[in-house]
Amino acid sequence: MQPYELSLSAAADAIRARELSPVELTDSVLERAGQVEPRLRAYATVTAERARRAALEAEREIAAGRYRGPLHGIPMGLKDLIDVAGVATSAGSRVRAGHRAESDSTVAARLSAAGAVLVGKTHTHEFAYGLTTPQTGNAWDAGRIAGGSSGGSAVAVAAGTATFALGTDTGGSIRVPAALNGVVGLKPTYGLVPRHGVTPLSWSLDHVGPITRTVEDAATVLTSLAGYDPRDPASLDLPAVDYRPADGTDLTGLRVGVPRTYYFEQVDPEVEAAVRRAVDRLRDLGADLVGVEIPMARYVQATQWGLMVPEATAYHQDTLRTVPGLYQADVRVLLEAGELMPAGDYLRARRSRVLMRQEWARTLRKADVIAAPTVPMTAVKAGQETITWADGTEEGVTDAYVRLSAPANIAGVPSLSVPVGQDAAGLPIGMQLLGRPFGEKVLLRVGHAYQRTQPPPALAPAA
Amino acid sequence: MQPYELSLSAAADAIRARELSPVELTDSVLERAGQVEPRLRAYATVTAERARRAALEAEREIAAGRYRGPLHGIPMGLKDLIDVAGVATSAGSRVRAGHRAESDSTVAARLSAAGAVLVGKTHTHEFAYGLTTPQTGNAWDAGRIAGGSSGGSAVAVAAGTATFALGTDTGGSIRVPAALNGVVGLKPTYGLVPRHGVTPLSWSLDHVGPITRTVEDAATVLTSLAGYDPRDPASLDLPAVDYRPADGTDLTGLRVGVPRTYYFEQVDPEVEAAVRRAVDRLRDLGADLVGVEIPMARYVQATQWGLMVPEATAYHQDTLRTVPGLYQADVRVLLEAGELMPAGDYLRARRSRVLMRQEWARTLRKADVIAAPTVPMTAVKAGQETITWADGTEEGVTDAYVRLSAPANIAGVPSLSVPVGQDAAGLPIGMQLLGRPFGEKVLLRVGHAYQRTQPPPALAPAA
Repeated sequence: MQPYELSLSAAADAIRARELSPVELTDSVLERAGQVEPRLRAYATVTAERARRAALEAEREIAAGRYRGPLHGIPMGLKDLIDVAGVATSAGSRVRAGHRAESDSTVAARLSAAGAVLVGKTHTHEFAYGLTTPQTGNAWDAGRIAGGSSGGSAVAVAAGTATFALGTDTGGSIRVPAALNGVVGLKPTYGLVPRHGVTPLSWSLDHVGPITRTVEDAATVLTSLAGYDPRDPASLDLPAVDYRPADGTDLTGLRVGVPRTYYFEQVDPEVEAAVRRAVDRLRDLGADLVGVEIPMARYVQATQWGLMVPEATAYHQDTLRTVPGLYQADVRVLLEAGELMPAGDYLRARRSRVLMRQEWARTLRKADVIAAPTVPMTAVKAGQETITWADGTEEGVTDAYVRLSAPANIAGVPSLSVPVGQDAAGLPIGMQLLGRPFGEKVLLRVGHAYQRTQPPPALAPAA
Repeated sequence: MQPYELSLSAAADAIRARELSPVELTDSVLERAGQVEPRLRAYATVTAERARRAALEAEREIAAGRYRGPLHGIPMGLKDLIDVAGVATSAGSRVRAGHRAESDSTVAARLSAAGAVLVGKTHTHEFAYGLTTPQTGNAWDAGRIAGGSSGGSAVAVAAGTATFALGTDTGGSIRVPAALNGVVGLKPTYGLVPRHGVTPLSWSLDHVGPITRTVEDAATVLTSLAGYDPRDPASLDLPAVDYRPADGTDLTGLRVGVPRTYYFEQVDPEVEAAVRRAVDRLRDLGADLVGVEIPMARYVQATQWGLMVPEATAYHQDTLRTVPGLYQADVRVLLEAGELMPAGDYLRARRSRVLMRQEWARTLRKADVIAAPTVPMTAVKAGQETITWADGTEEGVTDAYVRLSAPANIAGVPSLSVPVGQDAAGLPIGMQLLGRPFGEKVLLRVGHAYQRTQPPPALAPAA
């Protein structure tokens, strides 16, 4: 096994035991990137020299007995919306040509303080406003979409060109590519991880979170990311938590909500079967399955778009007027639509969200977690724009991918996507676990217990 | 001295000592209302029979040794936006003809549980959307405006037709009429007092709070009103506080911020002189005066209106389409303006508010409270629409009255208006004390110390 194949936990254990050096690990990851990047294009920028310097410094510190913790010397990719001082935040857009971030975002500063080593900035759908990331190929089949908007981060983790990565998630942008590339993605509770220094898409729906190979790894990264920063107005000042799950797999007494509505409607039969099998594993571990109704499901799409469209346009208003031709056509049309939207429509979406949060809180009293498909289908071919369901209904690919992930953004609840097998074509399937606000520890415990019933995660075979 | 002339504290002391019965007090207040209501019209509805029943019940409970606390048996007026089960919430509008509230608002339920006796529902500017309350006359000169939108509540307290009252405040609607009628008004911190069951004007700026004759009384009422209710999405779950101030007047070590900008610009010289005299009293009590700059002052008006106009329209959208002719012309034009507002303008106002909150927090690190005029001029004559300042500038009466009170709504900070004398025409002048979020206890301590340097408050002489 090569070092780039190690999970974060395995690599951290080896580094702490001084069986693996950060330089060896980083070199292995960079070499791997040299092999697969021409085909997958997960990175917008690879900061190889900077990474080698950071790895060397980590190696020296650890040799001198100054081990900082489980991220020390671990190579990571950061979505190219996340500022790192001195590096471009290109946001997948020609609008950002020549950009250079002046200072670290809060999350970059925290990971840097924890000793993580930046491999590079990963591709995003332009300004995170889409679910395909056309620059990047799926790690399991480069002719299929990576998913988005954090497509580069998910592909890098799935292909072994980053040991972990960060993404952002406004309607599913961490979880969708995580599911489509067979890795773990966590959208934390709104307000838990500060967004200072991260380019916004829609500030009332945006979240930053980890993409990793295992649930345990996601817990380790979240422990470093979480915590108050007043420079993000939504950030909450809460006691620190160690999110890492214990080793036990007994879920006796835990109530797993299985949706009777919404989440299994218009879902590919292979996806449904894989998720239901995973739910059965949770029952085998002692969990009680309870049927739940999903509240206000028919308002999800109007609420998501009603919030996102005008907020996105507000951020881009100046460049949309001065350099509209620099945006890709798909993003520009959405930004221009936002200029035409009346305040009343936005306010209706805000009021709908308040009601949905209340209803979700009520639903989550009946279950400790809710288990559902992350996305209704596996990765489509690059360029495919619609999908036709068994009943003949046609749905836009973007609408389909956002449909099951958006409720967690609107309700602000945490959602963890975990790989639960592949379809007949060998493409990964994801299950999401949704929980109560600030219930990340429960989600991670359940996801970890599930993963321990499965073979250890491996890299994407085609990568 | 008649019972209706007693402050809340004095009446409560007499009731607790069984020197005064709730029935006697309520009868005295109702009799007073019979005398002055024809001229002042503070009440939309007087619930005399219900009040007498409640007073009798309070009398019996107290006689039986079941004294509930300082509001037990105290007559109050509730602004006619605040639901009381079985009573109309007419909101000053023909749109609400035939209305009857099905259940108590949170604040009405809390005051009822504390034993307070409802005298009636007080007049509001239609749906709280204005600063004059044209139905009601000023308690000191019935030919002048009551101020608004909680005009009826302030006039009732000033005239002795309620021992205390509640108002609501979106841009100054508690503090403006309190100042213009020589009584105390408190707009609490956003999120402290639940608004469930209170007709909204602009939900991100609306507050409910007390109007009383003394600062001590405001503290007593606030102690009953504050506390979490999940039915108001903005309500915060915080530990209970007894807001009642201690008797001491020593303010040694307290830093009183005196604005060098904004709050003393375009202010009537008599108002400025009275407020500066009151600030000198605070210094005499030991406070240190420190000059402060008011942040982002030139964005106050655009931010206030940018938030309020579309939020108000969102609440009224259905009736504005079905029965537009039932609104008064001044309110209807504002509601219709809200239909034309783009989402981008509202979002700019929201972003401006986030920045203003941050800047106000910074400013309030330099001072424990900020002292300023509540309004720039005393009560104008009924029907007067503009005011001309010394430099020849003309300003709309509504714009002038909201100008100094709106910053506390935008920033969400508490603001307490205290009477600080009269102008040459004998009309009351108010000073507001602004403090840090959830710093009500400090404001009330300072306001109470100031009032103890003054003669005891008396009813409006002309009433």
